[in-house]
Amino acid sequence: MQRILARETKNNIGKTITIQGWLHKKRLLGGLTFINVRDRSGLTQVVIDNKDEVEKLRGLQIGTIVSITGNVVEEKRAPGGAELHDATIEVNVPVTDEPPIEIDKPLSHKPDNLDTLFDNRVIGLRNLSEQGVFRIRSQILRNIRSFLYDQDFVEIQSPKIVAGNAEGGSEVFKLDYFGKEASLAQSPQLYKQMMVGVFERVFEIGPAFRAELSATTRHVSEVTMLDIEMGFIENHEQLLDFIQDMVYDTANKIYDEHKDILNKFNAPELKLVKKFPRYSVKEIHEMYSKATGENTHNDKDLSPAEERWICDYAKKHDGCEAVFATNLPIEAHKFYQMINQEDSGTVLSADLLFRGIELATCPMRENDYKKLTKQMEQKGIDPNAAGFESYLKAFKYGLPIHGGCGFGIDRFVEKLVGLDNVKEAILFPRDINRLVP
Amino acid sequence: MQRILARETKNNIGKTITIQGWLHKKRLLGGLTFINVRDRSGLTQVVIDNKDEVEKLRGLQIGTIVSITGNVVEEKRAPGGAELHDATIEVNVPVTDEPPIEIDKPLSHKPDNLDTLFDNRVIGLRNLSEQGVFRIRSQILRNIRSFLYDQDFVEIQSPKIVAGNAEGGSEVFKLDYFGKEASLAQSPQLYKQMMVGVFERVFEIGPAFRAELSATTRHVSEVTMLDIEMGFIENHEQLLDFIQDMVYDTANKIYDEHKDILNKFNAPELKLVKKFPRYSVKEIHEMYSKATGENTHNDKDLSPAEERWICDYAKKHDGCEAVFATNLPIEAHKFYQMINQEDSGTVLSADLLFRGIELATCPMRENDYKKLTKQMEQKGIDPNAAGFESYLKAFKYGLPIHGGCGFGIDRFVEKLVGLDNVKEAILFPRDINRLVP
Repeated sequence: MQRILARETKNNIGKTITIQGWLHKKRLLGGLTFINVRDRSGLTQVVIDNKDEVEKLRGLQIGTIVSITGNVVEEKRAPGGAELHDATIEVNVPVTDEPPIEIDKPLSHKPDNLDTLFDNRVIGLRNLSEQGVFRIRSQILRNIRSFLYDQDFVEIQSPKIVAGNAEGGSEVFKLDYFGKEASLAQSPQLYKQMMVGVFERVFEIGPAFRAELSATTRHVSEVTMLDIEMGFIENHEQLLDFIQDMVYDTANKIYDEHKDILNKFNAPELKLVKKFPRYSVKEIHEMYSKATGENTHNDKDLSPAEERWICDYAKKHDGCEAVFATNLPIEAHKFYQMINQEDSGTVLSADLLFRGIELATCPMRENDYKKLTKQMEQKGIDPNAAGFESYLKAFKYGLPIHGGCGFGIDRFVEKLVGLDNVKEAILFPRDINRLVP
Repeated sequence: MQRILARETKNNIGKTITIQGWLHKKRLLGGLTFINVRDRSGLTQVVIDNKDEVEKLRGLQIGTIVSITGNVVEEKRAPGGAELHDATIEVNVPVTDEPPIEIDKPLSHKPDNLDTLFDNRVIGLRNLSEQGVFRIRSQILRNIRSFLYDQDFVEIQSPKIVAGNAEGGSEVFKLDYFGKEASLAQSPQLYKQMMVGVFERVFEIGPAFRAELSATTRHVSEVTMLDIEMGFIENHEQLLDFIQDMVYDTANKIYDEHKDILNKFNAPELKLVKKFPRYSVKEIHEMYSKATGENTHNDKDLSPAEERWICDYAKKHDGCEAVFATNLPIEAHKFYQMINQEDSGTVLSADLLFRGIELATCPMRENDYKKLTKQMEQKGIDPNAAGFESYLKAFKYGLPIHGGCGFGIDRFVEKLVGLDNVKEAILFPRDINRLVP
């Protein structure tokens, strides 16, 4: 008999159907046995009164895989509005050990015990709420790609094993590549810029590697990055508008379609306005100093406390949980960013902050070959190093004004769902203490 | 003035518009200067008779970035069916050096000189045909994901830095992970199987790493793999049908939509039938031995010559360029594959061959916890090793019958376009000799 999914049971009232899935819950009530069976579409409730059938489940635990044939009866209190009666059970895969964690609770882990979460990820995700995070994640990626394809973007895959350490920075994983020193790519930065010269608009969603020495709620050593780069944009505002529209569109779709999951995680109501507020770093220092009494006027980048503060401020003042911190200080930034001629000491770059955390950095790039090589030298980087040959060729032979962003998918998932640690948004996170599972 | 793309010029006949892009070609004809300007949508032809305007381009090379304002005139012989007259030129980014390779030829490289291709990738891809390969690649990924989303698949990202060397095999890149030994993932195999227990159907498209010591037309050290895994399938035939449908659907869409690019590469006509022919490895050995006089009856896996031969045979005999080689010999296969009870010495696995090369391996997995651990031990693998703890948990607590495939995206692009080397289908390929660009 053809398998019917849980979501289809209510369309089969009065018929005899077969469902197949995992035994998810079992309880006795007034001499009847109620079981829930989980499949990829949800739960089906089955009521069993035949003792021979109940006997088939003796000694079997949650996780046992069963095929159940029964009659579909309308039942408003059952998941999906219908349940199976007069059931015949076939055990496909018996499970005799009790699972290490409970999966039929609202969540399978305590929010403050992440080691339990990660050590038991493979079982814990059988909990319908927990797995919802990754259904949302998959949907976010689909929405973002769809948004970008519709705007003429070409998807690329750049190499993850790269020569030397082209971008600078110390947090690099090194490896031996057939006797040569190589490293794991920290971002597709140089490759996506090169491809602006070919396709104008490119994006990549893939892993990026950072040997983060600190174990915080925001850092992991393997992240999933969305890298976007687009040429022939008129100015920095246009770039920020584009990224804002992508976030607005994607986040709203998730909140429209996944209310059930978001409610389980107590995700706050989503507040976004079409035009995200924009404040310069200098303005934020001033506002924060005035509001808190701490003096941050002489700081360069924003501190994590200031990032949280400006997000709270924008939510209250502008009705928007996303905010751009613009006119970033030149010191903290890479050689390829474009210097802001209208605000000395800053680059044409902005951080996109959302719910207290930085999601993306969104700079314009220096596209003039001579200025770029000069900026490299000023940062102590040798433009003649082998790793830069192709990169600089792209500029020498004509690259238009361009900009883009490196956008943290894991952080976006974390904050959209309302989680407190980026690792919760990653299937199998990696940090200084964790290399398994 | 708002920029108009090349593909939109023909909708603006009689109007004054501004285009922006790369100087792609320049020639003199009867006292007039003809230039082609490239943007992300194609070429626009511009006719210049004003000497002051021609003068602006003196000494400037292909690649120079220009904004051109002119009147759109219908011209059937021009790309897009229209051209610009009475043009005013603004040079945005001057290029004064002649590009290292020509980009306005049918192809920017000779098919037998791949080093020229890769060393100049960043400029060579400005050739419209060459870049077509990667437009097709982007479209293939989009089509495949769309096919899978429509069938309830959840997209996952598994870690690329993994403990030890769980899958076995010697071709592993090792790295130091904060003092622990780690390796780069050769595939998401174990992770996708674990996720069958959560989502039933998962896929991942991402990099996989293999320290291939040989430099051939089929091997690279960093590949893009499509990994699919699906639970609750009835039998191996159903799995093969699914993969066949995905390939049929995706390949036909590419041939319908990208005839222009495929013609430039002399891609052969696509011949696929809805039901791909299926021959067991034993049958292929017999047929090949009979046809060629070589005796391969005692061989285990198919040789590359046999793979090419059976593809030719299936094309002629079955009218199909894709063919499954089924009943693969047990010796060459991994511990997690399901043994074929009906054909001793074989596993329930098949290779998908297309145009002479293996695209994918499509096995059923052993989903019985006890049989699986026994198969591990038979292969000399310790089930108690740390890398297997979570993997085996997924089986111990209930995993349904499942199967999937590891599908080489690079090879699929290569063969669909009609290329001869998998590296041509990769933006920046990596092999034993190549780590840049």
